[in-house]
Amino acid sequence: MKKIELKEGERFDDLQRNGYEIIQNPGFLCFGMDAVLLSGFAGVKKGGDLMDLGTGSGILPILLSAKTEGRHFTGLEIQHECADMARRSIIHNGLEDKIDIVEGDIKEVAKIFDAASFDTVVSNPPYMIGGHGLVNPDTPKAIARHEIYCTLSDVTKAAAWLLKEGGALYLVHRPFRLVEIFEEMSSCKIEPKRMRFVYPYEDKEPSMVLIEGRKGGNRRITCERPLIIYGPDGKYTSEITETYGY
Amino acid sequence: MKKIELKEGERFDDLQRNGYEIIQNPGFLCFGMDAVLLSGFAGVKKGGDLMDLGTGSGILPILLSAKTEGRHFTGLEIQHECADMARRSIIHNGLEDKIDIVEGDIKEVAKIFDAASFDTVVSNPPYMIGGHGLVNPDTPKAIARHEIYCTLSDVTKAAAWLLKEGGALYLVHRPFRLVEIFEEMSSCKIEPKRMRFVYPYEDKEPSMVLIEGRKGGNRRITCERPLIIYGPDGKYTSEITETYGY
Repeated sequence: MKKIELKEGERFDDLQRNGYEIIQNPGFLCFGMDAVLLSGFAGVKKGGDLMDLGTGSGILPILLSAKTEGRHFTGLEIQHECADMARRSIIHNGLEDKIDIVEGDIKEVAKIFDAASFDTVVSNPPYMIGGHGLVNPDTPKAIARHEIYCTLSDVTKAAAWLLKEGGALYLVHRPFRLVEIFEEMSSCKIEPKRMRFVYPYEDKEPSMVLIEGRKGGNRRITCERPLIIYGPDGKYTSEITETYGY
Repeated sequence: MKKIELKEGERFDDLQRNGYEIIQNPGFLCFGMDAVLLSGFAGVKKGGDLMDLGTGSGILPILLSAKTEGRHFTGLEIQHECADMARRSIIHNGLEDKIDIVEGDIKEVAKIFDAASFDTVVSNPPYMIGGHGLVNPDTPKAIARHEIYCTLSDVTKAAAWLLKEGGALYLVHRPFRLVEIFEEMSSCKIEPKRMRFVYPYEDKEPSMVLIEGRKGGNRRITCERPLIIYGPDGKYTSEITETYGY
């Protein structure tokens, strides 16, 4: 690993994958189970190119570069401090040849990237609608959690621009927005093809939903078996520990 | 119970609810777990009026008249033999004052019923798209299983006509059609508000989805905890036996 200096408030976190470590700052939104589960759900074809819309710390390109045989990984991030952290994490792990971090706005992908230039798009977008009632809507955490700089519709439209025909969009989101998610994807000709609810416990409401859409896909969705995080003993289920390596 | 004569091929089945029995004919589609689960998922408000679109044997009005405090229940059925069986089951259980069976076409509800005349609409519609490849598309089973006489869109349009503002539509359907279900409901201004996947086992794909929509509802869906039919021992889970009385 190359010597990378941490800035004030930053720390290295072990990704338990290939020995990789990621720089995080608790003042920003740290990656969570969401990103790790999405990295397990998303497929990247051998030799394929991937885009992560709103990459934050760069967690998704870093994990997917370790888990898949994709050729190249790009993370787009609007917040300068996040993009800077992500770039240093990439250097720290020696991944400069595989991962690029681009600073920019999801709403302007058409100015930055060619149309139909990616095989796969992933995103762990802000979940909450608007920024109403937020005392500090400009904080890094608010921007990562709330649809202040980009909405669900901005994400699906950007994906529709970036994806090749037949390419896949993978999202993790909150179940309460499922109707909108389907609607926004369909309106961009990205057909929802696969979904999985993530239930914290077997007898609880789902806390997340993982969705795969295909650009130009036909109308039929496969709903997968439940993904349950904790067993009755309060410990991670074997699927979480084995498949997701977390 | 009044004395009702069975026709050739018919039998009485115990509904394990209020001592009710229902007439079924294995030559037709017999009611299944689907209808029973929908009767547990659907709510009928006290004093409310309910419509069941495509009532078949009349299972849903009969079960819901026992389980809820609804005022009146109507079942619409296009197949004469089914409507006749349902009517005799209603007489057999002494439910003539609470339940009416109307013979008619879901696509023509506007000619048969007043607009906004029901508080609740339920339906266990045909699941399969079209009747392609069927050797005998006119058999009672084919008509109940395949979209030969009515499509999903016909059901949501009929519900939109029949429901009062704020009234609820409850459907049971196959998960592979979830995107379409949301789209058809939304296009009729019936917003999907609540859903629950039914998983045969904890580690299997969902076999059914239960959905509640509200006419004029706002955009937010509650996804409920998993409904699992069989435990690891192969027996019905306690929720199936207790809540659903099945």
